[in-house]
Amino acid sequence: MGSRGNWSVCGVGTANPCDRVGSGLHFQSPPAGGCPPTVLFAHSCFDSTIHKTMKNICFRLLLLVACCGFWGPGPAADADEGMWLFSSLPREYLASEHGFRPDQAWADHLMRASVRFNVGGSASFVSSNGLVLTNHHVGSDTISKLSNENNDYFANGFLARTQAEELETPDLELNQLVDIDDVTEKVNAAVKPGMSPAEALAARRAVIADIEAEASQRTGNRCDVVTLYGGGRYNLYQYKKYTDVRLVWAPEADAAFFGGDADNFEYPRYCLDACLFRVYEDGKPAQIDHFLEWEDAGPQEGELVFVSGNPGSTSRIYTTAALQYERDVRMPDVLDFIRRREILLQQYALGGPEYKRQANDELLGFQNSRKAYMGMLAGLQDPAFIQMKLDEEKALMDQIRNNSELAGYADAFQQVAEVQQRRAELRKESFTLNTRVYNLARTLVRLATEDQKPNSERLPEFRDSNRESLMQQVLSEAPIYLELERVKLADLMARTLEIRGGECPLCQAMLDGKSPLARADEIISATRIADAGFRKQLVDGGPNTIQACDDPMIKLAMTLDAEERRLREANEELDEIERQAYGKIAEVLFAIHGTSVYPDATFTLRLAFGAVKGYEEAGEQIPAFTTMGGAFDHEERHGKQDPWQLPKSWHDAQSNMMSNTPYNFVCTADIIGGNSGSPVVNRQGKLVGLIFDGNIQSLTSDFFYSEKQARATSVHAGAISHALRAIYNAGHIADQLGK
Amino acid sequence: MGSRGNWSVCGVGTANPCDRVGSGLHFQSPPAGGCPPTVLFAHSCFDSTIHKTMKNICFRLLLLVACCGFWGPGPAADADEGMWLFSSLPREYLASEHGFRPDQAWADHLMRASVRFNVGGSASFVSSNGLVLTNHHVGSDTISKLSNENNDYFANGFLARTQAEELETPDLELNQLVDIDDVTEKVNAAVKPGMSPAEALAARRAVIADIEAEASQRTGNRCDVVTLYGGGRYNLYQYKKYTDVRLVWAPEADAAFFGGDADNFEYPRYCLDACLFRVYEDGKPAQIDHFLEWEDAGPQEGELVFVSGNPGSTSRIYTTAALQYERDVRMPDVLDFIRRREILLQQYALGGPEYKRQANDELLGFQNSRKAYMGMLAGLQDPAFIQMKLDEEKALMDQIRNNSELAGYADAFQQVAEVQQRRAELRKESFTLNTRVYNLARTLVRLATEDQKPNSERLPEFRDSNRESLMQQVLSEAPIYLELERVKLADLMARTLEIRGGECPLCQAMLDGKSPLARADEIISATRIADAGFRKQLVDGGPNTIQACDDPMIKLAMTLDAEERRLREANEELDEIERQAYGKIAEVLFAIHGTSVYPDATFTLRLAFGAVKGYEEAGEQIPAFTTMGGAFDHEERHGKQDPWQLPKSWHDAQSNMMSNTPYNFVCTADIIGGNSGSPVVNRQGKLVGLIFDGNIQSLTSDFFYSEKQARATSVHAGAISHALRAIYNAGHIADQLGK
Repeated sequence: MGSRGNWSVCGVGTANPCDRVGSGLHFQSPPAGGCPPTVLFAHSCFDSTIHKTMKNICFRLLLLVACCGFWGPGPAADADEGMWLFSSLPREYLASEHGFRPDQAWADHLMRASVRFNVGGSASFVSSNGLVLTNHHVGSDTISKLSNENNDYFANGFLARTQAEELETPDLELNQLVDIDDVTEKVNAAVKPGMSPAEALAARRAVIADIEAEASQRTGNRCDVVTLYGGGRYNLYQYKKYTDVRLVWAPEADAAFFGGDADNFEYPRYCLDACLFRVYEDGKPAQIDHFLEWEDAGPQEGELVFVSGNPGSTSRIYTTAALQYERDVRMPDVLDFIRRREILLQQYALGGPEYKRQANDELLGFQNSRKAYMGMLAGLQDPAFIQMKLDEEKALMDQIRNNSELAGYADAFQQVAEVQQRRAELRKESFTLNTRVYNLARTLVRLATEDQKPNSERLPEFRDSNRESLMQQVLSEAPIYLELERVKLADLMARTLEIRGGECPLCQAMLDGKSPLARADEIISATRIADAGFRKQLVDGGPNTIQACDDPMIKLAMTLDAEERRLREANEELDEIERQAYGKIAEVLFAIHGTSVYPDATFTLRLAFGAVKGYEEAGEQIPAFTTMGGAFDHEERHGKQDPWQLPKSWHDAQSNMMSNTPYNFVCTADIIGGNSGSPVVNRQGKLVGLIFDGNIQSLTSDFFYSEKQARATSVHAGAISHALRAIYNAGHIADQLGK
Repeated sequence: MGSRGNWSVCGVGTANPCDRVGSGLHFQSPPAGGCPPTVLFAHSCFDSTIHKTMKNICFRLLLLVACCGFWGPGPAADADEGMWLFSSLPREYLASEHGFRPDQAWADHLMRASVRFNVGGSASFVSSNGLVLTNHHVGSDTISKLSNENNDYFANGFLARTQAEELETPDLELNQLVDIDDVTEKVNAAVKPGMSPAEALAARRAVIADIEAEASQRTGNRCDVVTLYGGGRYNLYQYKKYTDVRLVWAPEADAAFFGGDADNFEYPRYCLDACLFRVYEDGKPAQIDHFLEWEDAGPQEGELVFVSGNPGSTSRIYTTAALQYERDVRMPDVLDFIRRREILLQQYALGGPEYKRQANDELLGFQNSRKAYMGMLAGLQDPAFIQMKLDEEKALMDQIRNNSELAGYADAFQQVAEVQQRRAELRKESFTLNTRVYNLARTLVRLATEDQKPNSERLPEFRDSNRESLMQQVLSEAPIYLELERVKLADLMARTLEIRGGECPLCQAMLDGKSPLARADEIISATRIADAGFRKQLVDGGPNTIQACDDPMIKLAMTLDAEERRLREANEELDEIERQAYGKIAEVLFAIHGTSVYPDATFTLRLAFGAVKGYEEAGEQIPAFTTMGGAFDHEERHGKQDPWQLPKSWHDAQSNMMSNTPYNFVCTADIIGGNSGSPVVNRQGKLVGLIFDGNIQSLTSDFFYSEKQARATSVHAGAISHALRAIYNAGHIADQLGK
């Protein structure tokens, strides 16, 4: 099997340090590569699953450390590790260990039945007429956008009684992976020896743009070149795009997030974290060839199951220096930002019910991120973990020294270490005004500039191959809450001052002599950016219109653009150096272990697998399954206090329900943020569950996999169909599942 | 009148950067100088008054800036500025502007009727038999300590129906100021020319210890030397101490904090933020000669009133460099810490009702601090404010240049600027494990060492003159919630790693090879520090017992003591340099303006004054008074949702109440954190109200005073007595007020 320890390999880095908030361990994940890094940040980088008291987190993580010593997975104990490429499945291992050899047809069918939500998350086709199943917390951003003061579908749920009632979503793009090509040689050929990092980056970017443009033109599909093994391989992923997506069914938030922030990352769980969309083509439900059959019976205890989804980002290849940077610099910073935003959103919600509704989805996402980051940081702060990485690194260095063919690779670790130092310096200048209105203004300003350049020289998000996705975002009619934008912008301006100091000339230009509060108010009161028609005028008008535009948000974006580009370029240069260094480390791993190692997660389709099984915690056996009846007991145990209040629909239906219907279950599959909404299938390729979370013990999966206690948590297929029939009077939807 | 602008003068700096969290603008304030800086930190540095949504804060501060331009108080418009020493009242000004010349008897009576709560806050004697009136949020720390799982007096209120039922408090010390002496010459004589800052600090500390010891021995009272005008003057304050203090009455938190975090710092308000204690001597109610008479009728609109209390800390003398440090370094850091602790306490409270009870008082304090700091930082981030300070500084420098007698003082500004740079560097190493158990362990460890030294060489909190107060804290039987201590300690250890980096040898020694979570659990599970009897053994045993002690918390404190002392000394050296520099600046101000300037606040007794009057906000006139009936309307307007739910007692009593009884009122007196609980008296010296808050517009009072919109908020005297009679069936208490 080759390496199954922490030396699997990865993709690293993004432009804005703040964007990386989203690239950690959420079960929902950052948007796909084609989108501008921050346009989607506000509503996409945070997972919206929801957790137990700090006390319990502490206690459990403590046990994890105490039980596992350190977490280098043993060769047998943790055998089901891996987020495998569909183009390189571990067939031998599955055959020898599990007696199951998936053939190409099995894999192709599952790949094409899998769907990526570009706002961050996974999904699957579950009917021939276009039904798409994902998590409520993956759909919640869209469900919130469809809601308003009078119809809060997020809180109260939604059901289309007929196809005509299915709600068109404003800016959702779903991707179906249809083909994978290896383009490593073509990409690497463009980078000539002796090029500086900036030159190498430009050359690599140009050749990738050309490859994508050519493929996109040839196939009519979305084509993304994906960096794998941190720069060891480049693959061209071809996606069929669906942009007419409609909401079919969503349960109440109280059912989807039952137990709220307190139960998040906990197990046992009782959540109906599911919703259904439908893709349309030419105004009619799309005909889907590859959809998953539905297995109401779900999986059995101990059964091998597969998870097909888009894990967002892992850091298993990270060197010790990179992990130290994460531990001492980036994660503490990110956590400060998360807590800051949490408090801001809590305060905003005090304004009244409508304020609360506007803030809610984002607040849940930040709560989730905070819990996830705290788990990750707690893992990194255990001295034993860093010692384990140091020991591994030393062993690898010994192998490099003893192998003359690897001589050129010895400096890779030092290069990564130097990048961390430079990243820490760059953080001291890095700022973001990441709000929807500012991001839109910046995109418009940059669009005018980038469109003057040849396609291959543009920033990636402005390439022709991404134009349709970009325009969907720029011209989205999704509601913008200006009052919320205002408090966020004021806070981000204040934060920019805190980072760069009040005497910084750029800050002074940004503020124009006013306080952050006054300046944000001035701009938000006057800007027309929230009007999609105005944005359309600016897109159509081109550079001259932008130059002449006196909208204060456009002017602000113009004021900051040069510095934001400089910081982005500086970050991307560091990314490039790291990419080359990790590329070398990957080659070392290939040389030692062969190529049967899986790359770190990159928000592209992967296959994970594992057994449905419980685990031991504090001397107690946690069972693999919960039941729907157990949800009522759980509510009772918590005195029916918020967040343990099942919705009225559940209480009304309680007598109709089969209380022993399995509800949630756990398995050992190796997943991470971005896997939210992934279908769980059995050997027959039938859908038996829906991934929605991991337990507390899985929070360190960013850095290492262990199957001792870490578990992926799913909604049982039978619970979804039973809820549709017995609770939501949606038999007409349940009848379509798997057909 | 001399200077009435921002060039009033102050005391600066404390040892641990984190301690300074408490020294900002709260209406409750840090403990008095005699206590170890961090022993009391957890429960004393944060105010527990409670505010409206961020939206409204932003909007209002915005208006403040827009309306005032910058805030240099005009000579006439903001004439009631000042926190005056009782030994140097602005009699001429009061006579000429308000037609009232307070005589010595008036001042002495008010001074002696005023009481300081050493946990942070002000109060007054209001009966001959020892009743002490303060805010609920000043008493809440003690009320929480008296509560337990079965009797939550904090939430549900308390009433002693007889004197026998009055509840003994575990560790409350009240101070009554009885005398003030100027000892400036004696202190300054000890500091010889050519001494290094460290030598000067030691010499100053020694002479202060001698002065305090001599006075304490001579009088039997608590004697503190107080640094005024940032080092321009030293006064010896003599306090009579009361350590047998009993709880008489407290309303429900829902009445005291009606409107919660949302209404905090807002006006109009509807809060019964009051409670009553009684001081005892020899087991009997103390006979009090100087107590305030009670004026049920309260003040009239426009009437001149006086506030006698202990404002904690202001920064009006700060140079631009010091303000820039506050803006760019300290306040952002403090706010990150506040939000971090807020989230931690929120999470802890999710554990259930008892967890919530344990966390509640501290959580309210941190919410209050966050709102206050955000207001202050927003003020500093207005470019116009810093510009105003720069202009003032330039004008002062011009006066120095044109006055040969002031030639030696020109470098003071540069010295302050250099200190800020060094403070910023020092922050990068500064950590705290500020929990009750850790602080107690550290105090025990240090006590063993310090007691080996001559009195005058000890750290101030270990001087003989402070021994009784120290022992009251060290041997307090107040409950310690070990689960809460555990999560705080784990978080502070994690934060120490974040600050100093995971590879720091001290961090590694602190963790002993474990993660912060595991290490905190190990220590908290095994330590006996929570047992007051064990602490008594360690105090009695002396150095050998401490050295031989294998309690893990004691060992942890010993591990960290050297570095904590080093950081404290480094900070105190900077304090000394600043003290000398501000001393020079004060001399400049005295030379230019005479000595009729008031010193910055130092948590010692001051007199402020102003008129009862409303203000204009957003074109609307905000009336000075609210009524008790208005509280019911306010509840109705907010849909009776938390935090706008009046307690059952109020609803039961509604028909008995006189709804037009004045409830809260505002006046223009110049107050700051620490003034919470201050009596408001009229020209006759009768109590007409009880300070409990300031409005949003007053949040920048740390740096400047303005009477345009900034207001101090009080409970009306008549509302307190009416509530006692009509709501709380406490006529027997009401009958004693003012008698």
